[in-house]
Amino acid sequence: MHEAAPGHVPALDALIDALRHLPGVGPKSASRMAYHLLEHDREAAQHIARALDAALGAVQRCARCNTLTEDAVCSICADPRRDARQLCVVESPADLAAVEQTLTYHGLYFVLMGRISPLDGLGPKEIGLDRLMTRALDGAVEEVILATNFTNEGEATAHVIAETLRPRGLRVTRLARGVPAGAELEYVDLGTIARALVDRRGT
Amino acid sequence: MHEAAPGHVPALDALIDALRHLPGVGPKSASRMAYHLLEHDREAAQHIARALDAALGAVQRCARCNTLTEDAVCSICADPRRDARQLCVVESPADLAAVEQTLTYHGLYFVLMGRISPLDGLGPKEIGLDRLMTRALDGAVEEVILATNFTNEGEATAHVIAETLRPRGLRVTRLARGVPAGAELEYVDLGTIARALVDRRGT
Repeated sequence: MHEAAPGHVPALDALIDALRHLPGVGPKSASRMAYHLLEHDREAAQHIARALDAALGAVQRCARCNTLTEDAVCSICADPRRDARQLCVVESPADLAAVEQTLTYHGLYFVLMGRISPLDGLGPKEIGLDRLMTRALDGAVEEVILATNFTNEGEATAHVIAETLRPRGLRVTRLARGVPAGAELEYVDLGTIARALVDRRGT
Repeated sequence: MHEAAPGHVPALDALIDALRHLPGVGPKSASRMAYHLLEHDREAAQHIARALDAALGAVQRCARCNTLTEDAVCSICADPRRDARQLCVVESPADLAAVEQTLTYHGLYFVLMGRISPLDGLGPKEIGLDRLMTRALDGAVEEVILATNFTNEGEATAHVIAETLRPRGLRVTRLARGVPAGAELEYVDLGTIARALVDRRGT
């Protein structure tokens, strides 16, 4: 329809198509973004194009933990003050950033290439379980803390990793499940309350 | 906080900051977009950067109607089959595209630089009323159809344009207000129903 429309602007349409590749952006939002940038904020458009090129050129995966970094080895892996006996396994660099922002963890990380999801063709191999095995069995790691998401796929991923690592003599733990900080019980889902009851602890 | 965080990746942070300039994108979405592009879709990132550069280079304003185009004069203004006696005034190129997609209008357009909004410092001059005057008084235009939005600013803009053009002997009309196609009266707001009653027409 765009092709035949009078007033057709190919470079504008191409930009709208490209912006649709952003997560959470459909045709309406992409169109709004493209018009906004070209009409009102050409500086931002240039800024974004340059930031994309710079990030594509500079950002790579850490050779040790797989997170996004500008160096061969990320600053966390390279930090001698971090506790090499603990290895926290997360699904993505964004999850690593979330754990890191709590300021309560001082060990090292390993970032999976996503999570096990047979429907999407993602098995243990695709998410980098081999690399995790090599990393976890470096002799320094004593405890592997599974911090994959509490979704079905995340739980399955945690299960597979636990089954693989536990026989190798490593201590494998999982983030605690329970009632979120600040929550009112009335509004917490029943599954979470049930789990928090089962996992209750002495005070 | 980002500055001090361990595992800080400057090029990633710069990309997140740049993406926040997209309309409707806050810090959480920008972060999600940046991680997604760098982790899972580097091809899309390159694609977007190239489409932005191409659009910035190619897309300009039509010298005649002010819409976005790749030529000096847009394909609608350059089309001799369009009726030069009608001039439809819209707030933006996206609004022009919406009218055009109805396939019911065969006149020409004029795209304002936004709408009158005193609070944002946008008066008649800022939205290009002078240019509209010159364009509308070219001798060929007989009717100016005001298709600014039915918001307070859009209505004020339509009012100012009507007051300016009517004394020059032009017929000035406004898009009809009324009940939207497909609407059930029960769910239409009262102001719209009241207006549709006042503007009722013989069948």
